Amino acid sequence: MTDFKDCINKEITISGFAEKIRNLQWVQFIVLRNEGKRIQVTIEKSEEKNKEMVEIVDKLTCESTITVTGVIKENEKVKMGGMELIPTSIKVTSLSSCELPISIINKDAAQIDTRMDNRFIDLRNDVNFYIFKIQTEFIRAMRQFLYDNDFTEIHTPKLIGAASESGSEVFEVNYFGNKAYLAQSPQFYKQMAIAAGYEKVFEVAPAFRAENSNTNRHATEFTSLDIEFSNIDSYEDVIKMEENLLVAGLTAVKEKYGNLIKEIYGVDVVVPKLPFPRIKLQDLYKELNKRYGYEIPSHDIGDMNAETEKLTSRYAMEEYGHEFIFVTDFSKTKRPFYHMRKDDIPQGYDLIWKGVEITTGAQREHRYDVLEAQAKEKGLGDDIKFYKDFFKYGCPPHGGFGLGIDRLTMLLLNLPSLKETMFLFRGPNRITP
Amino acid sequence: MTDFKDCINKEITISGFAEKIRNLQWVQFIVLRNEGKRIQVTIEKSEEKNKEMVEIVDKLTCESTITVTGVIKENEKVKMGGMELIPTSIKVTSLSSCELPISIINKDAAQIDTRMDNRFIDLRNDVNFYIFKIQTEFIRAMRQFLYDNDFTEIHTPKLIGAASESGSEVFEVNYFGNKAYLAQSPQFYKQMAIAAGYEKVFEVAPAFRAENSNTNRHATEFTSLDIEFSNIDSYEDVIKMEENLLVAGLTAVKEKYGNLIKEIYGVDVVVPKLPFPRIKLQDLYKELNKRYGYEIPSHDIGDMNAETEKLTSRYAMEEYGHEFIFVTDFSKTKRPFYHMRKDDIPQGYDLIWKGVEITTGAQREHRYDVLEAQAKEKGLGDDIKFYKDFFKYGCPPHGGFGLGIDRLTMLLLNLPSLKETMFLFRGPNRITP
Repeated sequence: MTDFKDCINKEITISGFAEKIRNLQWVQFIVLRNEGKRIQVTIEKSEEKNKEMVEIVDKLTCESTITVTGVIKENEKVKMGGMELIPTSIKVTSLSSCELPISIINKDAAQIDTRMDNRFIDLRNDVNFYIFKIQTEFIRAMRQFLYDNDFTEIHTPKLIGAASESGSEVFEVNYFGNKAYLAQSPQFYKQMAIAAGYEKVFEVAPAFRAENSNTNRHATEFTSLDIEFSNIDSYEDVIKMEENLLVAGLTAVKEKYGNLIKEIYGVDVVVPKLPFPRIKLQDLYKELNKRYGYEIPSHDIGDMNAETEKLTSRYAMEEYGHEFIFVTDFSKTKRPFYHMRKDDIPQGYDLIWKGVEITTGAQREHRYDVLEAQAKEKGLGDDIKFYKDFFKYGCPPHGGFGLGIDRLTMLLLNLPSLKETMFLFRGPNRITP
Repeated sequence: MTDFKDCINKEITISGFAEKIRNLQWVQFIVLRNEGKRIQVTIEKSEEKNKEMVEIVDKLTCESTITVTGVIKENEKVKMGGMELIPTSIKVTSLSSCELPISIINKDAAQIDTRMDNRFIDLRNDVNFYIFKIQTEFIRAMRQFLYDNDFTEIHTPKLIGAASESGSEVFEVNYFGNKAYLAQSPQFYKQMAIAAGYEKVFEVAPAFRAENSNTNRHATEFTSLDIEFSNIDSYEDVIKMEENLLVAGLTAVKEKYGNLIKEIYGVDVVVPKLPFPRIKLQDLYKELNKRYGYEIPSHDIGDMNAETEKLTSRYAMEEYGHEFIFVTDFSKTKRPFYHMRKDDIPQGYDLIWKGVEITTGAQREHRYDVLEAQAKEKGLGDDIKFYKDFFKYGCPPHGGFGLGIDRLTMLLLNLPSLKETMFLFRGPNRITP
């Protein structure tokens, strides 16, 4: 639907939902909603030519869909942008049942589970509706950045023959009587593309995690933007790529939806300054202790936890005025075997945004012998032979990262949970609708 | 890698695979391959400054990866574009084992199964390598068309609680001790987006089919481009959207890769003329009978089969000089319950390209009562209650279609099988690597 201001005194046809209907003695009003935009339709009952329309509106129910043809008129009395649509025809394309199971106007009138059961109605609320308009623009702009940098798009299999890299829980599939599994990430396959000679690859696809945990930032299925590219000198090249990718995405979002995001979500979209701050984990521990009296629990030493992530963002904001911060120099015991190490330090990072980890990135170990030793050290054996083979016949230095786009969208809009931000959330207790 | 012609007499650094190495008495040659482009690296052995490089190349094996810095020089004796790279430094970034399991130069020297086992090497052959460069451009351009037409991107769940719409075989997943299934298509969920008020949506995502059949055009997992949009008048609007989408994709492919596709695959990319021809199924039967003496087998009446599809393309080419043709007016017994019917005729189509069906599209039934009756007629019950609910509270007229992008790429490049055209093929007997 185009902006109505361009249509004043012109005839237009608009389709949408009849969000509100007021049937007064002399006049009928409909608030017509189309993709989050609204216009008032005004029908004067006394006019003979309106007779048929008046009868239609008499029987109309809220949330029915209609197609209205008419002329846009300026009317300063109308709250909705000072404009109204004076119709010459109204066609009902579907009639809604009178009672909606949940409210559209006040999304928080229902419990989150009831809302998810009725997600197709829940999404009609502006706060929910715009999530996917904004996400579309975010991902579009990031893909465009990748195309502009000569990335190749790949589509790697989600059905895999052996449980994959991370050792955490995977879903099992009955594959014609045999066992198959659902991929937790395209990690091995995007590295395969590098071994195959693609310099830069990306994929946007579902990833599956059979973790029986119920937090606001985990789901059993989510959409991952994965990137891998070769001929790098160090993980600093990976960091730079990710910085530029996020700047491209956020610049486009701010331009197209900055005002709307401020209005609906109360969030200022900040295009982050380059370079993002970086800090080594040991230095971070010291800063968090000095500033906030925070001591990392002994079982988390060498790694971060939810509390550390929160404080890290606080530190980044206070010290650098920056929403993002890269943390490097994790312990090798806390990182996967395929991260390259230098002086025993994994050559990778976590990226923290608004108190939450959004990425683990790294240079990968591409030297067959070293990779094999690191896999052995983590207790990995024949299951990953096919993967190790990728490094036998020439494979250039490379690195990459993954971004969960649902989590990214949640943080962008300051939403409290993935349940709010996913088209249809999937968790241990939620597999419908 | 930029075009070398722009680099003559300039110093550049190139990384890639050492495809061929010739070590002669006075000179060493390397053919360096980067993303399908090649340049000859020439090292004069007699020059003192080359001593270190000569020693490196002495030990170099084919398909090792190297980074070369040097100056591009014109040399008309060099077959490879009349240019060579005179290096000042060569760095080996990974050393390949001497014996490759399959040939890179002649992809057909190995059986297809051996090739798939070693897909990461198989893809280094130009014929295979370029598939995903070309597919990237094809999908990029189609996505751009959709963005330009205000489509919203959605990511619908692949883990579903009930076996989905088509009644054909689905994969079963062990979901924390309960049964879940893998989505065969996002059909129900893209329609949910329409009911939620999104006017136009698309998704590019994996789809899963547990069909135990081994043909050249079926896979158990493939990537589907799915589209759904509302406020249509008839399925003719769906047809028009698909025509324009394909024209956008093929125009971009022809522009960027037309010459290369001609050279490598021997295929002329044709940007199809609008409108594509259309024919009703009954008229098609008559034409195929009249022209080719073809009689549809009785069990296929009201539908098409592989042979019909082939002849239909022959007809479209002979009659209209067109690679594409829409076939309409299938029997309702052969179409799913959610296709709208008019005078008992499903309001949908198949699109045939180069002898193969690439799409089923339709206007959907959005009237609750009619939908329920059609579902009942097909024997569908409570499993799809959640889906039928989408149409209770206002849902505009809408339609859409899906395109398997692996099949589309196969047809674009005249490849004989999905095994050739998928990054990693998945079939009943193939779940690795």
